[in-house]
Amino acid sequence: MNEKLWGGRFSQATDALVEKFNASIEVDKRLYASDIQGSIAHLKMMANESIISKDEAQILIKGLGRVKSKMDNNEIPFTDSLEDIHMHVEDALGEESGDVAKKLHTGRSRNDQVALDVRIYLKEETKHIIQMLTDFQRALVVMAKKHLKIIMPGYTHMQRAQPVLFAHHLMAYYEMIGRDVQRFGDSLKRVDVMPLGAAALAGTTYPLNREYTRQVLGFGKVSENSIDSVSDRDFVMEFIGHASICMIHLSRLSEELILWSSSEFAFITISDAFTTGSSIMPQKKNPDVAELVRGKTGRVVGNLVAILTTMKSLPMAYNKDMQEDKEPLFDTVDTLKICTAVYTRMLPNIEVHADRMKAACKQGFLNATDFADYLVNKGMAFRQAHSVAGKAVAFGLGQNKELNELSLAELQSFSELIEQDIYHFISLDQMISRRISYGGTSFDNVALAVQRAEKELDLS
Amino acid sequence: MNEKLWGGRFSQATDALVEKFNASIEVDKRLYASDIQGSIAHLKMMANESIISKDEAQILIKGLGRVKSKMDNNEIPFTDSLEDIHMHVEDALGEESGDVAKKLHTGRSRNDQVALDVRIYLKEETKHIIQMLTDFQRALVVMAKKHLKIIMPGYTHMQRAQPVLFAHHLMAYYEMIGRDVQRFGDSLKRVDVMPLGAAALAGTTYPLNREYTRQVLGFGKVSENSIDSVSDRDFVMEFIGHASICMIHLSRLSEELILWSSSEFAFITISDAFTTGSSIMPQKKNPDVAELVRGKTGRVVGNLVAILTTMKSLPMAYNKDMQEDKEPLFDTVDTLKICTAVYTRMLPNIEVHADRMKAACKQGFLNATDFADYLVNKGMAFRQAHSVAGKAVAFGLGQNKELNELSLAELQSFSELIEQDIYHFISLDQMISRRISYGGTSFDNVALAVQRAEKELDLS
Amino acid sequence: MNEKLWGGRFSQATDALVEKFNASIEVDKRLYASDIQGSIAHLKMMANESIISKDEAQILIKGLGRVKSKMDNNEIPFTDSLEDIHMHVEDALGEESGDVAKKLHTGRSRNDQVALDVRIYLKEETKHIIQMLTDFQRALVVMAKKHLKIIMPGYTHMQRAQPVLFAHHLMAYYEMIGRDVQRFGDSLKRVDVMPLGAAALAGTTYPLNREYTRQVLGFGKVSENSIDSVSDRDFVMEFIGHASICMIHLSRLSEELILWSSSEFAFITISDAFTTGSSIMPQKKNPDVAELVRGKTGRVVGNLVAILTTMKSLPMAYNKDMQEDKEPLFDTVDTLKICTAVYTRMLPNIEVHADRMKAACKQGFLNATDFADYLVNKGMAFRQAHSVAGKAVAFGLGQNKELNELSLAELQSFSELIEQDIYHFISLDQMISRRISYGGTSFDNVALAVQRAEKELDLS
Amino acid sequence: MNEKLWGGRFSQATDALVEKFNASIEVDKRLYASDIQGSIAHLKMMANESIISKDEAQILIKGLGRVKSKMDNNEIPFTDSLEDIHMHVEDALGEESGDVAKKLHTGRSRNDQVALDVRIYLKEETKHIIQMLTDFQRALVVMAKKHLKIIMPGYTHMQRAQPVLFAHHLMAYYEMIGRDVQRFGDSLKRVDVMPLGAAALAGTTYPLNREYTRQVLGFGKVSENSIDSVSDRDFVMEFIGHASICMIHLSRLSEELILWSSSEFAFITISDAFTTGSSIMPQKKNPDVAELVRGKTGRVVGNLVAILTTMKSLPMAYNKDMQEDKEPLFDTVDTLKICTAVYTRMLPNIEVHADRMKAACKQGFLNATDFADYLVNKGMAFRQAHSVAGKAVAFGLGQNKELNELSLAELQSFSELIEQDIYHFISLDQMISRRISYGGTSFDNVALAVQRAEKELDLS
Repeated sequence: MNEKLWGGRFSQATDALVEKFNASIEVDKRLYASDIQGSIAHLKMMANESIISKDEAQILIKGLGRVKSKMDNNEIPFTDSLEDIHMHVEDALGEESGDVAKKLHTGRSRNDQVALDVRIYLKEETKHIIQMLTDFQRALVVMAKKHLKIIMPGYTHMQRAQPVLFAHHLMAYYEMIGRDVQRFGDSLKRVDVMPLGAAALAGTTYPLNREYTRQVLGFGKVSENSIDSVSDRDFVMEFIGHASICMIHLSRLSEELILWSSSEFAFITISDAFTTGSSIMPQKKNPDVAELVRGKTGRVVGNLVAILTTMKSLPMAYNKDMQEDKEPLFDTVDTLKICTAVYTRMLPNIEVHADRMKAACKQGFLNATDFADYLVNKGMAFRQAHSVAGKAVAFGLGQNKELNELSLAELQSFSELIEQDIYHFISLDQMISRRISYGGTSFDNVALAVQRAEKELDLS
Repeated sequence: MNEKLWGGRFSQATDALVEKFNASIEVDKRLYASDIQGSIAHLKMMANESIISKDEAQILIKGLGRVKSKMDNNEIPFTDSLEDIHMHVEDALGEESGDVAKKLHTGRSRNDQVALDVRIYLKEETKHIIQMLTDFQRALVVMAKKHLKIIMPGYTHMQRAQPVLFAHHLMAYYEMIGRDVQRFGDSLKRVDVMPLGAAALAGTTYPLNREYTRQVLGFGKVSENSIDSVSDRDFVMEFIGHASICMIHLSRLSEELILWSSSEFAFITISDAFTTGSSIMPQKKNPDVAELVRGKTGRVVGNLVAILTTMKSLPMAYNKDMQEDKEPLFDTVDTLKICTAVYTRMLPNIEVHADRMKAACKQGFLNATDFADYLVNKGMAFRQAHSVAGKAVAFGLGQNKELNELSLAELQSFSELIEQDIYHFISLDQMISRRISYGGTSFDNVALAVQRAEKELDLS
Repeated sequence: MNEKLWGGRFSQATDALVEKFNASIEVDKRLYASDIQGSIAHLKMMANESIISKDEAQILIKGLGRVKSKMDNNEIPFTDSLEDIHMHVEDALGEESGDVAKKLHTGRSRNDQVALDVRIYLKEETKHIIQMLTDFQRALVVMAKKHLKIIMPGYTHMQRAQPVLFAHHLMAYYEMIGRDVQRFGDSLKRVDVMPLGAAALAGTTYPLNREYTRQVLGFGKVSENSIDSVSDRDFVMEFIGHASICMIHLSRLSEELILWSSSEFAFITISDAFTTGSSIMPQKKNPDVAELVRGKTGRVVGNLVAILTTMKSLPMAYNKDMQEDKEPLFDTVDTLKICTAVYTRMLPNIEVHADRMKAACKQGFLNATDFADYLVNKGMAFRQAHSVAGKAVAFGLGQNKELNELSLAELQSFSELIEQDIYHFISLDQMISRRISYGGTSFDNVALAVQRAEKELDLS
Repeated sequence: MNEKLWGGRFSQATDALVEKFNASIEVDKRLYASDIQGSIAHLKMMANESIISKDEAQILIKGLGRVKSKMDNNEIPFTDSLEDIHMHVEDALGEESGDVAKKLHTGRSRNDQVALDVRIYLKEETKHIIQMLTDFQRALVVMAKKHLKIIMPGYTHMQRAQPVLFAHHLMAYYEMIGRDVQRFGDSLKRVDVMPLGAAALAGTTYPLNREYTRQVLGFGKVSENSIDSVSDRDFVMEFIGHASICMIHLSRLSEELILWSSSEFAFITISDAFTTGSSIMPQKKNPDVAELVRGKTGRVVGNLVAILTTMKSLPMAYNKDMQEDKEPLFDTVDTLKICTAVYTRMLPNIEVHADRMKAACKQGFLNATDFADYLVNKGMAFRQAHSVAGKAVAFGLGQNKELNELSLAELQSFSELIEQDIYHFISLDQMISRRISYGGTSFDNVALAVQRAEKELDLS
């Protein structure tokens, strides 16, 4: 009556709602290629170790090839009663290859099998994401290079602070994404571990050659402890953790693009192809892409919380709760990839309004720090100079004049150290040019930073 | 070239990747019935206020009926280029009713339209969930009544503490779920608000009669402020918050069912129909349902974090980020519903092992508190009695005997107040019977609690 | 050797690090007044039921009064070895009243005691917070009334959308906070439940009169199930959930205040007393308060996740994990209170720049929707009118002119329906005046909304 | 009137509540040593580059030494009006060294200063944590070695699955913690970056030699981009992310220790020194430490959400929101350290009950997989063998007998392949011995794993 592969000891069929509830096939079907790849490696190893005959292995490997083709072409229907992708592949293999298919699962459990499948999947996707993030860095550097001389206000607390190069601002994101790439690279070490052979949790009595399987699959190492092998989801948590940080970076860029697209800033115009309109307001042109990327940050952080909460206080070894690891993982991979792709594509379609940026630098006393530095250069202690500059700003505010719009006499009323050269000293270009400390925004520094990045990215 | 409904001012077609990225149709298509219901009400109101003619309204309402039928039958394909369910319905209406369909969106924006759709959806689902939780309470009460006299160890810190009735334990969950029902009921007030008429954000210049629309749709009140109407997602956050607490409750029950199903506890057996086996270990019968419910708690808490993080620091009024509200909401509704349904169905299929529970009560000094209470009854201060009992326990541990297994002489060595009646006093049934403080586990109390619950649930 | 109150059965002293680790006194000491209040009620009830003598009760109640005074004056040192506030109070009572203090803990456990203490605390704080939020609403309404006629751009997607009244914008926050007040009010029902008498988990064998204790303490009802009484932390989770939504509201207002304070918007000036400067940039005046409130949103959402994650899958009844409920709760109460207080105080210290707001309304085609509505009034279907308006906008963009700056001939080139009265129709005041749908931004609507609010808040 | 260091341009004193709200001194005071260390390096560099004179540097460095001593001895009171630790140190330096102290802040902002302080702090703490985790691994390995031959049931789904070595189980945690160590090690690269010289956000006009400062402070590299330097909190998010995973590991161990301490499992006894009692139940001995560690997992995950939510969508460069990074960071460091310390200390104080573990292995058909393997060895396909074993289990359940308790005739009724040697094959020791696949639980494997670990930890 019961045809479940595990049904021997059961005397009652699974409740229909339970079948639907338990089944993971809707989610894990996307692992079919990894699953088949893992099975083929398992068969090769078993043949090599004479656990099955070479002929049996041949038949099954060919059968799996046909199953793969059919799944590629959506020719195999998925059904809750076969629970998961492992059962579907094994069942389909039975159709292809007959009774010998019953040998496939020798020395193996779904516990180590799913760990392998997810690792195959995530290893590939992580590499892909690293590549996509690098492409995004390229787009940033290309954009920075194109606008090397454009000056914009730098902000702290959303208040105009000091002038910076627009390229310098973009290169800050280059650094952030660079750290993301580094983090994903580091985490690969912990994904690149081959768990097959742990079986249910205790290892297996078959003389598996796990090193052989590892080589066939191209993994860096085999897992060391069978219990850990099937209960470990660190690599999922770590990946989503890194993805969350990466999304935080994208959310910050999004916030800026949204602000810069507003009428109030008007620093940039995103092309029509990357914006959308309103069903009611005919004039609207909305930075939807940036908003959605920002919004999707919540989704990825939510995925992180989901997996952490799910894993919390699970005893060894495998628990069914862990089936819930896949949706947050897959959703995070998909979200991170499309956000990165759409941003990489959008950047070159942003028009930069250098005039607006420059105009913004001229209002808001962005030269007050340099005014103080001027006084320090003339021998005043910094704290005192800061105070003098503050008073000059307060005076300017009252007069509705910027510091450089005050007369020399007015300026000298704040300190006798001030001379005519102050105007040159606190001019926009001078302020940029003088910020030569390493990593600062001077023209030379930023040009060099762009060059260095081009080299790192093989762009030059 | 550009056929977007908002495309008048645009000179460039939307980038294909952006189209895919922006589109919400894959997610919001499930709102089609709510969307059509809202549009019909909008049309009725507009006809009533002579904003459109009665004939136009008739044509459009009939057309929407046909669109609904087609969507019910999956006859209308969904496509990213039409972005969302609103555009799809309007487009399909154009097919049905021709040019007059262009009047449908009068005095309305997708901003207030989507707020309405989600509220229609969530109001209904919340009511449904309240019903399902009440059914679950019924199953708990039926189970409690069936096992009214069974005694089990009560635990604190997972250590045996004092004996309690199994029915009393179940009734604790009755209380928890009762609070969930109450919370969802409270939140309905804030869902039951009709936002249509807020238009994009400022209200509209058409003489809409929002009160009329409210009545047609059966909402409790109309929203008070147009900006708030389109930017408010409180009801989504609140719903997922309440769902998270409810899932925490289910996760606690799950933990217990899993432990009780273990060989170590063996307090219950879940029927074959609600458990599954292992692909490698023939003897396994796993409490998958309970594990999955426990695991899905993470998912719902993740959804809560997702929506909170997404909404954080969004300026007024509508922002595209808010499109990300639907997936966590829908997923939470679906998850909570199936978890509740499967639990309601599973409870009657649990066999309770009264003998094992009773046996467990007899080991672990569960009568130590009553031993102390005995001394207090004889005049000793509680703290001193506690200390005496602790010493008796230590002595018993050394002898490998329970308190009731010690001889009267041995017991009297700890206090002269002890007499023969101690054995009766600290017997299992006596301990239960004596816990008569309101809400305590005495037989009478629990029977009354079950009766009260039956009345509340119209079960008796 | 071991002087722990529970030490009878123990043969080894607690490890020093464990003592430090386990102790909650640093956190729960703030509950001392609630703890004493609960103990006094417990004593009164026990005397009334003759569980202890009236004399004993008198002595202990007086003793507790002295303990309270000393704790008020920080005269009682706290130490990890006494673990928690309950032990400290009981120990101090021993100092005051001698051996009779050993009777205080009769029929009670720290499990129900701490549940009571936290409920006393939270009931009071929730009421306080409701009061503070109402004060904040008052500040919003006062501000709205003061600026009833000021027009500002309404935004969607951070793009100028349609003109709205600044007062209308403020009243959106009035609505949000109103829902917060309602939510906290609803949750009070579930806080206002008296758990004492549940004892460890099973109820107690002493003839406690829980109804009497409830009345002494002024609670609304007694808890129904003793196991639930000690394992329930719903009220903590629910409170922090509501607080999170409230903080989301404040974060949204913060975002707007920060943007409006920027040079780009310059819609408001926050007074010097509510801003701070920079240690390096003499001109800076930062909206720190708004930024900090926005930042603290993360903290409260973090607290919510902390308590949810901690509670997940805890079996009945009390577990030590639950000791971790207090810090997130206390921190949330403190954070919400100071954020609300500082905002209530800051609002009247914000200067509004009506001229800047109005100027912003004149650029960005904010009248495009009304332009389309004009055409609908003349008989065109809305979708077509939207398209015509979109084309006019595109034309205006090319000419660098707003719609109202185009000549009649230019306008008529888009539709023959356009006549001279278009200019009046799409003027700023007209656009506001015409948005008369209930909840819309017309002058009359907003004035009425403010009046209604004044009434609700007893302000008028 | 206003004595704030940044007060030059301000005409109004800071509101008292704002002062309290803004001040971070209660939190960041623990950075005083790092802050002073950073200032000394800054002074040395400035002297070396002749930005200040060698004499001035000498005076200030000595002054800072005295400030450090005083702060070590709590001789300097902290006050909200001085906002943060930077202001306190600078102010105290003024007391020590007079007006020359006003030169300290030359070429520096609190923005880069705080980034430096936190990095100095976190670099040291991360190293400390790595050391502590390694100590914890040592304790695990020592315990594993001590119990090398003890057999316990391995569990999946909390159901007895297959026998494993207790040492093997412990070594699973060795692997988990090993990955934590690796992750923290990887993250150090990104902490070990020197940001000073970024100043407010744009770099500085003083000829700072950042490379020199880096060397004095012993950092690995200098930061590359000044904007990124002050807006980057990746290292905080990454650290708390890794800590969350580590706490998940500890929570899993906690869950197991709690279960194993229950009467139902009774696999271990934790010594009195690491458990506590109950104020009401004299017999209770609770595994509080394990429970608290499990509970504190929520706290750390909450901290992670707090910082992620706070950082989400912050524009460049520094925003006051980022002040909220310190509490979650400090709390996470403290929590992780004490949890690790207390666990390291507790492990050797756990008594292991080998007899109970072994007894548990003998019930629950833990040899069913080996029973199937036996049949595979005799030539049956695995799937078929699994089914046969399942039927034998079902039969045994009916008879209330384990597989090894069935007669040969009974066994042979399931398959003719079964012979007398089946009993040896499915005996406990044989099952362990045969699991020789790499990473499996065989005696030899586990002994080797322990040896390898001893080597890695310099234990042998």
